[in-house]
Amino acid sequence: MFFSRIRSIFTTYSKEDKRLIASIKMMVGSKPLNLRPYRVAVQHTSVAKSVKKGFKESNERLEYLGDAVLGMVVAEYLFKKYPFKDEGFLTEVRSRIVSRDSLNRVARAIGIPDIVKFDRRRKTPNSHKSLYGNTLEAMVGAILIDRGYNFARKFVLKKLLVPHYDIDEILATTKNYKSKLIEWTQKHAKTPKFEHLQTIDKGHFKEFIMQVTVDEEPIAKGHGLSKKKAEQDAAREACIKLEIE
Amino acid sequence: MFFSRIRSIFTTYSKEDKRLIASIKMMVGSKPLNLRPYRVAVQHTSVAKSVKKGFKESNERLEYLGDAVLGMVVAEYLFKKYPFKDEGFLTEVRSRIVSRDSLNRVARAIGIPDIVKFDRRRKTPNSHKSLYGNTLEAMVGAILIDRGYNFARKFVLKKLLVPHYDIDEILATTKNYKSKLIEWTQKHAKTPKFEHLQTIDKGHFKEFIMQVTVDEEPIAKGHGLSKKKAEQDAAREACIKLEIE
Repeated sequence: MFFSRIRSIFTTYSKEDKRLIASIKMMVGSKPLNLRPYRVAVQHTSVAKSVKKGFKESNERLEYLGDAVLGMVVAEYLFKKYPFKDEGFLTEVRSRIVSRDSLNRVARAIGIPDIVKFDRRRKTPNSHKSLYGNTLEAMVGAILIDRGYNFARKFVLKKLLVPHYDIDEILATTKNYKSKLIEWTQKHAKTPKFEHLQTIDKGHFKEFIMQVTVDEEPIAKGHGLSKKKAEQDAAREACIKLEIE
Repeated sequence: MFFSRIRSIFTTYSKEDKRLIASIKMMVGSKPLNLRPYRVAVQHTSVAKSVKKGFKESNERLEYLGDAVLGMVVAEYLFKKYPFKDEGFLTEVRSRIVSRDSLNRVARAIGIPDIVKFDRRRKTPNSHKSLYGNTLEAMVGAILIDRGYNFARKFVLKKLLVPHYDIDEILATTKNYKSKLIEWTQKHAKTPKFEHLQTIDKGHFKEFIMQVTVDEEPIAKGHGLSKKKAEQDAAREACIKLEIE
């Protein structure tokens, strides 16, 4: 990092680079130590140039890296925030946070459209659907390369997650597994049934075990503090087993 | 961490805990600062107890966390090791490194079977297929909670990836996209064709562009330093577009 700082003092930047540095400072909170990964991060594959041996340098590699960083940071954040929620819940909430729609929305909010470079002539209805979100992922990858994991983690938490997500709203709108299962059974002319199997007395509280059957065949069991919660849990398991999206 | 050390000095451990501490020291290289997450990590859901409000404490939450750590560490490792490979290659190699088979194999090699606790009576041919690999993921999650990301990263690299994987062998056996595509077309009574579209003179080297068609319809293009590599690249793109597993 020391040498990066020295290098940045002696480098003269083009007008375009200076604009990029200013944008990164706005987004990240401080100037880049090494501009190179950010230059690549804003370069969509439609304007990528071959740099070596038939290898085109676009932001897709950095996108792959940034995707891993986001997955890791959000996984840890949710794990610690919800100590009594199971991995199904954590997985579901995480997938909503890093969904294409969410990332596109956040990318627009932090100004990604102003810095990404792509070939506007090649624009088709589908090819640029995730352009901004993907570039945001690539930016996160560039931050990892430039500053390391701890810095990238703070960026994700403080500049993306906290200001741009309403976790309560995400929870409120997270899919209802029971309705998903019922919809599916209706579509396939099958009959679902929820049965109360057992109530376990835990002293201070009771745990309920519910089973869901489809056309009399037992599919999954669920447990929870109320019958309703146990039903949701059983329905979630059933959705996984029956591969209901 | 300081308080964790103090705490560990004044805690008296059961025989079982002492055995677990010794095993962790063998695997990780040093004793845990906080034993709690490791105790949870070795607890398969078949022996999980309800701890609160219908919430069962098994290793599945830690498995979710460890999976994210492995994904992140391996992503960064491959990104840096292969600067001129595209994201398709990186994704493919990573998925082979963290596959169920690989993780089960490594888990056995580092001694996970000796420490995992599960209900042997409930053993069925399928339910424990990934038991060891899943527990390894949970152990990685426990290390993250106990020691933080940088320590967990070093564990993954130095104790799992370097000693237990032969990356060259993984590369050599990584699926051949061209054969996959040809197999698929045979199964569906279709005809694939590879066409050379263009050779670009890059001065020191040439880049080849190949196109693959299925029943005369252009599906994907690929580029590479040789026609063979460009074909593979086109076939990989085609496998993605045609959703060939």
